[in-house]
Amino acid sequence: MHFNPSQKLSKIAALINAEFDGDPDFPITGINEIHRVKRGDITFVDHPKYYEKALKSNASTIIINKKIECPNGKALIYSDDPFRDFIKLVKNFRPFKTSSSMISPTADIGEGTIIQPGVFVGNHVKIGNNCLVHANVSIYDNSVIGDNVIIHSGAVIGSDGFYFKRRPEYQDKFESGGRAVIEDHVEIGACCTIDRGVTGDTVIGRGSKLDNHIHIGHDSIIGKNCLFAAQVGIAGCVNIEDDVILWGQVGVQKDLTVGKGAVVLGQSGLAKSLKGGITYFGSPAVEVRQKMKEIAALKKLPEIFKKLD
Amino acid sequence: MHFNPSQKLSKIAALINAEFDGDPDFPITGINEIHRVKRGDITFVDHPKYYEKALKSNASTIIINKKIECPNGKALIYSDDPFRDFIKLVKNFRPFKTSSSMISPTADIGEGTIIQPGVFVGNHVKIGNNCLVHANVSIYDNSVIGDNVIIHSGAVIGSDGFYFKRRPEYQDKFESGGRAVIEDHVEIGACCTIDRGVTGDTVIGRGSKLDNHIHIGHDSIIGKNCLFAAQVGIAGCVNIEDDVILWGQVGVQKDLTVGKGAVVLGQSGLAKSLKGGITYFGSPAVEVRQKMKEIAALKKLPEIFKKLD
Amino acid sequence: MHFNPSQKLSKIAALINAEFDGDPDFPITGINEIHRVKRGDITFVDHPKYYEKALKSNASTIIINKKIECPNGKALIYSDDPFRDFIKLVKNFRPFKTSSSMISPTADIGEGTIIQPGVFVGNHVKIGNNCLVHANVSIYDNSVIGDNVIIHSGAVIGSDGFYFKRRPEYQDKFESGGRAVIEDHVEIGACCTIDRGVTGDTVIGRGSKLDNHIHIGHDSIIGKNCLFAAQVGIAGCVNIEDDVILWGQVGVQKDLTVGKGAVVLGQSGLAKSLKGGITYFGSPAVEVRQKMKEIAALKKLPEIFKKLD
Repeated sequence: MHFNPSQKLSKIAALINAEFDGDPDFPITGINEIHRVKRGDITFVDHPKYYEKALKSNASTIIINKKIECPNGKALIYSDDPFRDFIKLVKNFRPFKTSSSMISPTADIGEGTIIQPGVFVGNHVKIGNNCLVHANVSIYDNSVIGDNVIIHSGAVIGSDGFYFKRRPEYQDKFESGGRAVIEDHVEIGACCTIDRGVTGDTVIGRGSKLDNHIHIGHDSIIGKNCLFAAQVGIAGCVNIEDDVILWGQVGVQKDLTVGKGAVVLGQSGLAKSLKGGITYFGSPAVEVRQKMKEIAALKKLPEIFKKLD
Repeated sequence: MHFNPSQKLSKIAALINAEFDGDPDFPITGINEIHRVKRGDITFVDHPKYYEKALKSNASTIIINKKIECPNGKALIYSDDPFRDFIKLVKNFRPFKTSSSMISPTADIGEGTIIQPGVFVGNHVKIGNNCLVHANVSIYDNSVIGDNVIIHSGAVIGSDGFYFKRRPEYQDKFESGGRAVIEDHVEIGACCTIDRGVTGDTVIGRGSKLDNHIHIGHDSIIGKNCLFAAQVGIAGCVNIEDDVILWGQVGVQKDLTVGKGAVVLGQSGLAKSLKGGITYFGSPAVEVRQKMKEIAALKKLPEIFKKLD
Repeated sequence: MHFNPSQKLSKIAALINAEFDGDPDFPITGINEIHRVKRGDITFVDHPKYYEKALKSNASTIIINKKIECPNGKALIYSDDPFRDFIKLVKNFRPFKTSSSMISPTADIGEGTIIQPGVFVGNHVKIGNNCLVHANVSIYDNSVIGDNVIIHSGAVIGSDGFYFKRRPEYQDKFESGGRAVIEDHVEIGACCTIDRGVTGDTVIGRGSKLDNHIHIGHDSIIGKNCLFAAQVGIAGCVNIEDDVILWGQVGVQKDLTVGKGAVVLGQSGLAKSLKGGITYFGSPAVEVRQKMKEIAALKKLPEIFKKLD
């Protein structure tokens, strides 16, 4: 999430009643969770395991639950509960707004775009030219849809990310404040769900085509001209490069990268990042030739065991 | 399904034109299918294989297709087709009612609850306080939603259970008469479906969080503070205890129990009940350490076979 | 797609500005993609690998990108880009029509049928008698629904097929012009998607029952009295014969046939056609007894390797 205009350190700290270390006028130009942080952003860290990652990240301001020396050129805000205070900031800058009509008067819809009946278009949504949005689609606030996009019935664009922090007594929700961004010439199948970024953008790259029932998690970035078959599930913070083909029911775990032009056969499960240009199969997925050899070997195994007995 | 006030044996038998064995005034306090039967309930049995189970169950009245001796303290109703007659009773006490508006005037919606546009709220639905129901959600009749619940777009609460009896010529539908119950602080992701119980309740326990595209079958009971990632599928009559974590695309077969605090890795398939406190992987799922050893061994197998040749 | 009345070869060729070989009055009675082509149809072929298949198919007229000798009793239309020109014809005969109301005035809805609130019914949709269409269902143009059909909330009937041709710079969409046909006594679960045929019909056979979140691809034909559990995914151009049972999360690849009465256990993946009357398991699926032996053997393997070391 980008601040325009930028905010001052002292003002941000005041919003969460916190002490800070740095120039009170130190500029904060955006707010982002650690996976998608950019220079000028404020982020948070609440576990010693990730202190160094946060301090060395592009983040310029860090909300942290320990008093430490402030790194050069950065600012710190001290909080006993950085997760709680970070969410407070996200909600302050991107509060939930109720809609009282199916198509918000603040939505910006391009020329030649057809919105079929029963479609919900939230506040400040931007839809480009010559799109076709089929009946009963739901588009949450602040989503951005390019030109020549087709969205099929039942699809949901910009729902909240699935991101919780375990508290002793309950699961604490990270309130999503990011956006879903659908680039030009994308097609989204029926009953697909594209979660928005928790602070950044979830992006479906130009020309990519999604079959039905596909889930794209928060902050994932899908490249250009990808083809995903039905019921593919992509967790949060995944990077799928251009021209990747995922066949039906493939699952991809969070934080992974799938290289350009990779092909993953049906029902495979990705637990590690994969290099591009190669075909994979299995759960966990390996190169398809290796998996085919394993399948052939396993097929012979019962007979061999029988002979050994 | 609970009767309030309770019904008399003779009246229930008359509704299905059946003979009975027992005091005509014998009280029937509810109606439930065998998996969820409680003391005072009427249930049915139509296969000799299950006679004993039904007769020894908590059910006080049993619709049965054989003349047998009536057990002490119970009542019997004789029917040539108990399935047909049981459904006749379910439909009598919980008939389908058409809705003529998106939000039924008989729905009871709490203070501070936001219902976004395009939401369907059926007859006699109860929604608590401070909930947020996003656009284009569908909530069937008689569903019960607690306080502070979030339901994302495209989700369906209270659809019919998937329960059919094979007849020679067709699949005969068990008409659902139960409810979907969503407890406080639950979050239901976009395009999730929570089927209602066929006679009892399907329950999502307090504080549990469901990602997108999750299916919860009829009469399943989900505990508290569970986390289910996207595209998980839970069949009917499953018990998931508290604090269970199911990662993406996990499938759970009907009638199973998953113990408190169990963790099941992505794409695993559960064909048996699992003890709590342990991490599982695979289809069928086994302890993750065992599965990892199997995967490692299988990887070596083709090379070993090659050497043996 | 059937033409009524039939079209003349010369007129069809003129629509795409193409030369032809055959009697100008040669009748064309329909248009179909190669998988579902019938006598009298026009189809297209653009790859030498499939020339012979197209020329020997039932198609009477073929759009082709090479000048060849016209087979007896057939007609040819020459195009430098048969895919582009075929789609031009599909769009000409079945153009997309915007809807301005939730239920099109051109829809034909039978007696006793209940349409709940929030349902979209497109142009020229036909729905039979005594159906129940639950809230927020979307039914695309030209779909055909029989009698006594139940469709649950969030389901989408007749969305576009997922069919793209890779061009150097982008994925080129095959514009769907076919229909979704739901026969009598079918039940479609919540959030199911039934894609229409790209030129022909996608068919759900009489009495078949679909649980929630099921995907049926374009031009697939599902037989009678089938049972599919939740989250099953069927690709395009699949033939499922009568009485087939697919348990939860099963995936079926395109162009396959599953024989009458086959049973496929949960999470299995079908990469080849399967004979009827047999139970299968695994991904890829094999006979369940074989798979159970493999699973048992694999379980012992780590221990055996340990001993060998």
